[in-house]
Amino acid sequence: MEFSEWYSDILEKAEIYDVRYPIKGCGVYLPYGFKIRRYTFEIIRNLLDESGHDEALFPMLIPEDLLAKEGEHIKGFEDEVYWVTHGGKTPLDVKLALRPTSETSIYYMMKLWVKVHTDLPIKIYQIVNTFRYETKHTRPLIRLREIMTFKEAHTAHSTKEEAEKQVKEAISIYKKFFDTLGIPYLISKRPEWDKFPGAEYTMAFDTIFPDGRTMQIATVHNLGQNFSKTFEIIFETPTGDKDYAYQTCYGISDRVIASIIAIHGDEKGLVLPPIVAPIQIVIVPLIFKGKEKEVNEKAKELYEKLKGKFRVHIDDRDIRPGRKFNDWEIKGVPLRIEVGPKDIENKKITLFRRDTMEKFQVDETQLEEVIEKTLNNIMENIKNRAWEKFENFITVLEDINPDEIKKILSEKRGVILIPFKEEIYNEELEEKVEATILGETEYKGNKYIAIAKTY
Amino acid sequence: MEFSEWYSDILEKAEIYDVRYPIKGCGVYLPYGFKIRRYTFEIIRNLLDESGHDEALFPMLIPEDLLAKEGEHIKGFEDEVYWVTHGGKTPLDVKLALRPTSETSIYYMMKLWVKVHTDLPIKIYQIVNTFRYETKHTRPLIRLREIMTFKEAHTAHSTKEEAEKQVKEAISIYKKFFDTLGIPYLISKRPEWDKFPGAEYTMAFDTIFPDGRTMQIATVHNLGQNFSKTFEIIFETPTGDKDYAYQTCYGISDRVIASIIAIHGDEKGLVLPPIVAPIQIVIVPLIFKGKEKEVNEKAKELYEKLKGKFRVHIDDRDIRPGRKFNDWEIKGVPLRIEVGPKDIENKKITLFRRDTMEKFQVDETQLEEVIEKTLNNIMENIKNRAWEKFENFITVLEDINPDEIKKILSEKRGVILIPFKEEIYNEELEEKVEATILGETEYKGNKYIAIAKTY
Repeated sequence: MEFSEWYSDILEKAEIYDVRYPIKGCGVYLPYGFKIRRYTFEIIRNLLDESGHDEALFPMLIPEDLLAKEGEHIKGFEDEVYWVTHGGKTPLDVKLALRPTSETSIYYMMKLWVKVHTDLPIKIYQIVNTFRYETKHTRPLIRLREIMTFKEAHTAHSTKEEAEKQVKEAISIYKKFFDTLGIPYLISKRPEWDKFPGAEYTMAFDTIFPDGRTMQIATVHNLGQNFSKTFEIIFETPTGDKDYAYQTCYGISDRVIASIIAIHGDEKGLVLPPIVAPIQIVIVPLIFKGKEKEVNEKAKELYEKLKGKFRVHIDDRDIRPGRKFNDWEIKGVPLRIEVGPKDIENKKITLFRRDTMEKFQVDETQLEEVIEKTLNNIMENIKNRAWEKFENFITVLEDINPDEIKKILSEKRGVILIPFKEEIYNEELEEKVEATILGETEYKGNKYIAIAKTY
Repeated sequence: MEFSEWYSDILEKAEIYDVRYPIKGCGVYLPYGFKIRRYTFEIIRNLLDESGHDEALFPMLIPEDLLAKEGEHIKGFEDEVYWVTHGGKTPLDVKLALRPTSETSIYYMMKLWVKVHTDLPIKIYQIVNTFRYETKHTRPLIRLREIMTFKEAHTAHSTKEEAEKQVKEAISIYKKFFDTLGIPYLISKRPEWDKFPGAEYTMAFDTIFPDGRTMQIATVHNLGQNFSKTFEIIFETPTGDKDYAYQTCYGISDRVIASIIAIHGDEKGLVLPPIVAPIQIVIVPLIFKGKEKEVNEKAKELYEKLKGKFRVHIDDRDIRPGRKFNDWEIKGVPLRIEVGPKDIENKKITLFRRDTMEKFQVDETQLEEVIEKTLNNIMENIKNRAWEKFENFITVLEDINPDEIKKILSEKRGVILIPFKEEIYNEELEEKVEATILGETEYKGNKYIAIAKTY
């Protein structure tokens, strides 16, 4: 099955996201998908909280004059902004934009908060919906008109060096985040012509989808003093001078959910990292005539024993076990416990792990210990598997040969790395190879230009 | 100080919400306020999850034709809806509303999900931002144009009785929620002319603010089959017939945060229920010359000891202790630990509780136990205090006398209860008493009409 077909299919069958809402590029996070989202963003929330970021919440509407204040920034977004023009039947005096991103609304407030260097640094984030009037083909959780989940962090500092350090901190937080989820990435510095509108430079994380195209999954921007000059975020330095704040911002969206699905999934369906699985262990009672009571009691007993430590569910629906197995395999539940009369007799438990589709037995006395180990092992395994596939998708070339590049990108696909040379690093190269330049990147100690077909 | 002045003042000083955003009725949840919001909505989230509700997330934009589908519903909202008319410079084919509430978007999807009675019940909720183009005077967290936090639950059932039972469950969940926060309430059935647009009937929770005006803090609606007929939510019954689903919906907004502030606060500032306090215990080291090291070490030691069980913070800023005390009193931190050289010598700990402003000493060995007890005691105390004030605001009259009612509502204010009589229960009564009829209510076993000046 082709990837994009598989992807649509799995969103529906695993009950992640319903695309049937009557606006293009807008859909519904179903309860199962919502839980994956909740656990996933809880990870990044914890990483940000631990590193001194504060969560806040800013308005969704941005007045036209505010959005238009930073010239380059608005140029980058003006074709994609949704405009509110009426309240009831009354035309509004000032048009209001649905936030495409929140630099302008947040920096308007930062000006009010920053007076002296001791007010800095500010490290703030919010998790909100943002909007883009996409004219391109939309795709669920990948290219949306309502990006339902956008984690955006914004910082302000009193020196250039501190802002630079913040970019590094953000990159290290995002590395930890994707490592926790087992999502492989290539970090590159986007070329000048592809940086964030208003930024000094943009660092980006790209992963590679099963069809060999790259997907941008996170960006970190050093904004320098571009926005602080426009928004007059001015502070008094320790020596009594005035300076503009040095800023950074960085974001992660619903695409991380799309990546969890795409990177780890297989022909059977989802394969969820245990840390974000809404159900980590499903217990399926195998009912045999005359043994109903003891099987159900055992299932219940195991449930009670495990529920304090893991997210467990008993599937007591009145359908064949085979159908139950199938349902939970599609939904990517990492572990299944099968409870049958024979196992009860032998004081054994049958476990099934979703990642390898293997069944094995353990002594009941060792159950919790084995589960813990197996869940860790599943995480390690799917992470290694994902990185292996990722590395296989990377082709290192010794020099630039457009025909060779085009051939690789149409057959094997993935990312091509060619040695970095200033003189070839420009927009024309994109035309020559009929692909996108992701940017400059380091790979095994050498500097390369990364080229790929992107989403 | 007048209440509304106190309220604005405290939002600013306690760093809850910044009103200086350049759109009327839109503001910023600051980190401290955001944490209160987060812990508060975590309580309702848990209550809903435990009672079989599923969290989901629906689109923010609603096409005009969808919103207009249910006649009464749209009539109730049409003057208050914000309209998106353009994407970039392109006029949209169909205008898009910013959701004022989500019945129409959710019920469009429910039609797709419901085929047979076994698909029911559906009990779903989301926590989202909603929008009203308010022409009235806006107030932070009370009457907003962007309601930043709206918890809306929507259910569908196969019988009328089940929907009726769901209304009762919703009421009992909301009771638990407000009881947990110590917010007093009067529950009433709103009069016909004031029910939710499209509902069969509306049950509402009102609390009373310190200025004697009532504040609607929650509503529960029985929608009957009104929406399911419009949106064609049809299911096959066990006997093979077709029927329309029976629906309910119920909501809670940012007003719960406003209530926590207004109901429990005092002249000094916030008094937070420990369960939602971002910091439950603040440790203030009392530094004396020559004793710096031992005091700071002790503070650190206590912090390490308590941080696993409570939300603790050490205030090690280089300012006078008096200023620290004041800051945390304004922010409503329930407990303060003062660490001084004398206490260390005597193996005693000095505690200060915010609700009573009392200081007392405990043996260090009993610290954790005393803290736990004291936090519970604070919760009980502020809850009882709030209910006492609430009861004092209720005046029970034996019969209707418009002049008397007007007098009470202009002097003592609060809620007036008059015995329920069908013949006087109509809109004209509102004109006569120059106040709002909250609805029918039971109070100490009798049925009354509740009258008040409302927010």
